[in-house]
Amino acid sequence: MIATPYLLYLGHSNDNVGIKTARGLAVFRPDICVGEFRHDDCGLTLDLPRMDFAMARAAGARTLVLGIANAGGKLGADLIEDALAALESGLDIASGLHHRLNDEPRLVEAAARLGRQLHDVRKPRPDIPIGNGLPREGKRLLTVGTDCSVGKMYTTLCLARALEKRGIAADFRATGQTGILIAGSGVPLDAVVADFISGAIEQLSPPRTDGGWDLIEGQGSLFHPSFAGVSTGLLHGAQPDALVLCHDPTRPHMRGLPHYQLPALDECLEANLQVARLTNAAVQAVGIALNTSALPEAQAYELCARTEEKFGLPCTDPYRMGVEPILDRLLAATGIPSTIAQPA
Amino acid sequence: MIATPYLLYLGHSNDNVGIKTARGLAVFRPDICVGEFRHDDCGLTLDLPRMDFAMARAAGARTLVLGIANAGGKLGADLIEDALAALESGLDIASGLHHRLNDEPRLVEAAARLGRQLHDVRKPRPDIPIGNGLPREGKRLLTVGTDCSVGKMYTTLCLARALEKRGIAADFRATGQTGILIAGSGVPLDAVVADFISGAIEQLSPPRTDGGWDLIEGQGSLFHPSFAGVSTGLLHGAQPDALVLCHDPTRPHMRGLPHYQLPALDECLEANLQVARLTNAAVQAVGIALNTSALPEAQAYELCARTEEKFGLPCTDPYRMGVEPILDRLLAATGIPSTIAQPA
Repeated sequence: MIATPYLLYLGHSNDNVGIKTARGLAVFRPDICVGEFRHDDCGLTLDLPRMDFAMARAAGARTLVLGIANAGGKLGADLIEDALAALESGLDIASGLHHRLNDEPRLVEAAARLGRQLHDVRKPRPDIPIGNGLPREGKRLLTVGTDCSVGKMYTTLCLARALEKRGIAADFRATGQTGILIAGSGVPLDAVVADFISGAIEQLSPPRTDGGWDLIEGQGSLFHPSFAGVSTGLLHGAQPDALVLCHDPTRPHMRGLPHYQLPALDECLEANLQVARLTNAAVQAVGIALNTSALPEAQAYELCARTEEKFGLPCTDPYRMGVEPILDRLLAATGIPSTIAQPA
Repeated sequence: MIATPYLLYLGHSNDNVGIKTARGLAVFRPDICVGEFRHDDCGLTLDLPRMDFAMARAAGARTLVLGIANAGGKLGADLIEDALAALESGLDIASGLHHRLNDEPRLVEAAARLGRQLHDVRKPRPDIPIGNGLPREGKRLLTVGTDCSVGKMYTTLCLARALEKRGIAADFRATGQTGILIAGSGVPLDAVVADFISGAIEQLSPPRTDGGWDLIEGQGSLFHPSFAGVSTGLLHGAQPDALVLCHDPTRPHMRGLPHYQLPALDECLEANLQVARLTNAAVQAVGIALNTSALPEAQAYELCARTEEKFGLPCTDPYRMGVEPILDRLLAATGIPSTIAQPA
């Protein structure tokens, strides 16, 4: 587990997409983000208090999160200098970059000397088993997508929170670097060795007997020719009782692949159900989540209504409109009362 | 590339399944196997001349192949001693064990001092790209299976040889350790990081414009819940024009998973075609390969005839009966003359 709260590192960034990990934390975990660190040439802000390392430590921060993605995932010299200064100020460091903190001798030396932790969230734990496909206790929902980066993490987090609000135990199970930093644990599925994809998800989401739900963050798409292997192993390892299909209606083609069209929603849903049935024959689709952030409000609501009617499934933009219709369908479909009485 | 010919190491083995890599080499590449090395307590033989390291080197051997799989894939102390002696005798070492030769300081030191090579065939090359799904030139066939270890490598090798016999250029593209040692190169797909599965196959089987075929060794099964992610990425990366479905009719359940039945052949074939169509819409099934080694001859032929009639596809046991009917269908289906005139 990564110690919280966090100081979010923006460094010299001027690329809005490049700080998406930091932004995900600021949006979903403002409670554990005490501030942002940025140099004077950084044109971006997450509207958190600007702090240097000593101020952040004094304000209670425990870990500096390198929530940025630069070209090649490299740890540049300036990033290393900043990380060293943060260690000296009493902060641990967490990073989702490909280039690992623990491969940088100066950081390793400083952390050891100061008793600080270096967390490479993209490094899988060493004890991942081969998947066994054995049916396990507990209810699990998995988000799937027509493409990469269509809102699977946002949808999963919104569902977890809405379940908790109804008094139903729910755990968000993170499978990507941003999700791992939000949850404080998880598996970086894209970095797991191919033979262990489904086993990694079985380990991430063990049997549960408390009547609660595991909400598992999806990755990639069965229709993305670069990453469908990951999505397949994730479907098998998750043994989901319920799927929610995520989609960006403004996406012109598969991410990074102008020569690939997005699949139709019904084709995509049926393919996911078919793959999921191998390890859970009772899997059901319970909703469609659209990322409508690029659409005006009226058009967004109209599109959700039309999609709902066309496919016979609740459809919302989780971030804009909430997930209540999907939750109602989920709980009805799986025979669970729609709210649990809260203790007085 | 691994220098040939090989000396096959059986060591102290008494487990027939444990020497399957060595046996695959002896069966498919007797031309590059000069002998076998075994200790006095080894009860197995591949019917090759028994040699010590110096004898093998004198007979022309260039590489000692640790073609065994022991519990946990470990390099035990006795194995290391033997490998050191082989290096001293002038042999390179190749291993498909999980425990890498290059992680063993004594072997690394000896190899460097003697100018010898250590080949860890289970270690992927470092420059594997993300798959791009771009259509590429050339004809490709992929073997797929109802399960793991049902004869995909044997079938692929038999097809490659039969094509060559007809004067049609054909390359076997290895995706597992035994195949890599047989071919001298390839990609250990089960050891590739999840995000790179399809990219590894695009790299393994680049565009070709000579009218010849790439015959790509399949791995796992879409219906094996431990490994279907690998099979999915392999289907997408291969962009196959043709699939051959491999099956062991005596397999009681999915390998290692008594709680999973094997899929029906038609269901399995249709699922593979569906996944393959994402990157090659023109993919066709051209045959079924049965591993009938556990059946008496009459029953084996009868089963192939019945299977052929039932599914409308040529069906043979490649190793027992050859692959001619599948080749005829392959070439007819892809519009290629069934033989190429050989130069006189």
